[in-house]
Amino acid sequence: MTVIDIPADSPFGLDNLPYGVFSTPGTAPRVGVRVADTVVDLVAALGDKVFARPSLNDFMALGPQRWAAARIRITELVRGEVPADAVLALADVTMHLPIEVADYVDFYASEQHATNLGRLFRPDSAPLMPNWKHLPVGYHGRSSTVLVSGTDIVRPCGQRKSPAEQVPNFGPSRRLDIEAELGFVVGVPSAPGTVITPDEFAEHVFGAVVVNDWSARDIQAWEYVPLGPFLGKSFATSISPWVVPLAALEAARIDTPVQDPEPLPYLRGAEKWGLDIALTVEWNGQLVSRPPYAQMYWSPAQMLAHTTINGAAARTGDLFASGTISGDHKDQRGAFIELTWGGAEPIEVNGEARTFLEDGDEIAIAATAPGPGGARIGFGEVRARILPATQAHR
Amino acid sequence: MTVIDIPADSPFGLDNLPYGVFSTPGTAPRVGVRVADTVVDLVAALGDKVFARPSLNDFMALGPQRWAAARIRITELVRGEVPADAVLALADVTMHLPIEVADYVDFYASEQHATNLGRLFRPDSAPLMPNWKHLPVGYHGRSSTVLVSGTDIVRPCGQRKSPAEQVPNFGPSRRLDIEAELGFVVGVPSAPGTVITPDEFAEHVFGAVVVNDWSARDIQAWEYVPLGPFLGKSFATSISPWVVPLAALEAARIDTPVQDPEPLPYLRGAEKWGLDIALTVEWNGQLVSRPPYAQMYWSPAQMLAHTTINGAAARTGDLFASGTISGDHKDQRGAFIELTWGGAEPIEVNGEARTFLEDGDEIAIAATAPGPGGARIGFGEVRARILPATQAHR
Repeated sequence: MTVIDIPADSPFGLDNLPYGVFSTPGTAPRVGVRVADTVVDLVAALGDKVFARPSLNDFMALGPQRWAAARIRITELVRGEVPADAVLALADVTMHLPIEVADYVDFYASEQHATNLGRLFRPDSAPLMPNWKHLPVGYHGRSSTVLVSGTDIVRPCGQRKSPAEQVPNFGPSRRLDIEAELGFVVGVPSAPGTVITPDEFAEHVFGAVVVNDWSARDIQAWEYVPLGPFLGKSFATSISPWVVPLAALEAARIDTPVQDPEPLPYLRGAEKWGLDIALTVEWNGQLVSRPPYAQMYWSPAQMLAHTTINGAAARTGDLFASGTISGDHKDQRGAFIELTWGGAEPIEVNGEARTFLEDGDEIAIAATAPGPGGARIGFGEVRARILPATQAHR
Repeated sequence: MTVIDIPADSPFGLDNLPYGVFSTPGTAPRVGVRVADTVVDLVAALGDKVFARPSLNDFMALGPQRWAAARIRITELVRGEVPADAVLALADVTMHLPIEVADYVDFYASEQHATNLGRLFRPDSAPLMPNWKHLPVGYHGRSSTVLVSGTDIVRPCGQRKSPAEQVPNFGPSRRLDIEAELGFVVGVPSAPGTVITPDEFAEHVFGAVVVNDWSARDIQAWEYVPLGPFLGKSFATSISPWVVPLAALEAARIDTPVQDPEPLPYLRGAEKWGLDIALTVEWNGQLVSRPPYAQMYWSPAQMLAHTTINGAAARTGDLFASGTISGDHKDQRGAFIELTWGGAEPIEVNGEARTFLEDGDEIAIAATAPGPGGARIGFGEVRARILPATQAHR
């Protein structure tokens, strides 16, 4: 038996206990919980078959009572002695995509981001569309390309046309960008034809991850009218390997900013689902932005209510992301197109003037939230490196 | 043993042999082939476990050689005597969704439709966007709400704002519409980072279905800028229960209309993948439109090449649909918003002047293609009825 040493200030202490899917050489992917710098193998520790799966989906489908019971059991386990073979060093495991993604939806819930993008993409119009303050604007993304942190990102190719060019040309994206976001994972499905109201959020949503919604701005700008982004986004969406359960985010719950005009009744709730979560963006190891989730206009509970108000079923494994998180200040912007104002205002990264991503660049986005005690709740980072394009000859 | 009687003019003769998933009371869903007005139970007839599944996905993943071998085996079987317990009357079975949908993408490949919608949605601009003739415009839809023919459609609720209104209001869609489309189903996945070129289409795509992409035009018109349609589409997409294999569509292959300007090289191929497929739309039993797939500007092979050109993986069960099929003539338009010009020009249905769908309406969309002999290849219809909204009180 082993006692896990948890430093008092660990962002992965007993108040967090995020779930992930891991393997060691020669063993099958299974569910574990992160505690400090170790992974507790829940199959070895608890003998519960629901954790002997290559994704969290079966566990997430069990619902809030079973999630709460598991959390109590795991807390008791980790407080005491854990079977030695159930404790692995984080450095010795491979992390896998924690969920089998059903539908993936990406929102656009930061007023600052939507305003900045509106100015950049449509300089001759009002930056915020008339619908923006009435509903959380969102769209479906590609589920097959949701990737776990650590997976390299190959620079996508596609059609690009700058305003100065008459016709599009083909080649690797020249404006490859990040979007620092938070993602939410549905555990309990909803029946077709029913709505998940904002106050029913915690009955369905299991937890949250950090998301990097990679974006090829040149491909996106050319393709996106009138049906929205497609290939400019669908090549890759990276998520952190650890799903932080909602139970660990209780101390982070805050009001959203004032919503004016007042949203329609189906978007209103008594529960607070604004979240005081602080993100960091590192570009080749240098901190370049601190996006504040606390400033997001629409709450994730409103996003899910909106997604289901037309009767669309939510399924176990549905992932919905917030859209880029950008705050009031320049160093709080969650995408390089905003940080460098469309490439016109380069920023300095390790002594070089930089705008968009270059091959070999590495991006790490992380997040923390206040915990119930003094220690913060960590999300674990989403990290990936850019590899050169492979389809450039077409 | 039984000999199946196949009328010489049956659209479900030996040249077709579409696959579906069916059950009878008390039995599990499994794969069958439609022959005339019977379903041949492939588990009972061939004893092959790959057909003892609730979707075609495992069979579709086997690839073209195994599809061809199965087609030969089934043809020989059906030509001769079939075990009596393997032949069921169509009227005695329940059809299920034939595929487990991975990612769902909807295109916008009819020039006539895109032009009509552009005029209706954006009367002050050029109807076709500058990108339209350079790439097959498409976007991701919701996989969880792809439904098999026969499933009732509940009228969706959502935010609606007419141009005359200052703010949106909530309620049942007042402009519920259809979109008559053809859908294509991926069998063999592609590796991440690789492209399915137009000439590799038949190595990956298993077959085709008829699609009704239900659309709430009022919800869509308010929400769709700048990220595209979301709730105006995501409540339901209906597909026909029978997947017609590409092998049955050989005689339907034609050139697309002339594409000018010439597409970029990655969208070019030597193979013809235009398809001479004729659709019919029945509104409460009355034929109201005959959309001609032959007039579609972009081929499905170009759609799939475009989807994967950025390196996005295609998976078994991916469904991509053509977008509304509309021809040159008014009675060839595949959506009521076009047929009735935004509701301004009602059409007569069973003696009543009609614009959009009313509760209780029933829509049936069917399609046929030329076969190698005289008989046509039938798709089987996608039929559904509109039920009243259930969330209208919110």
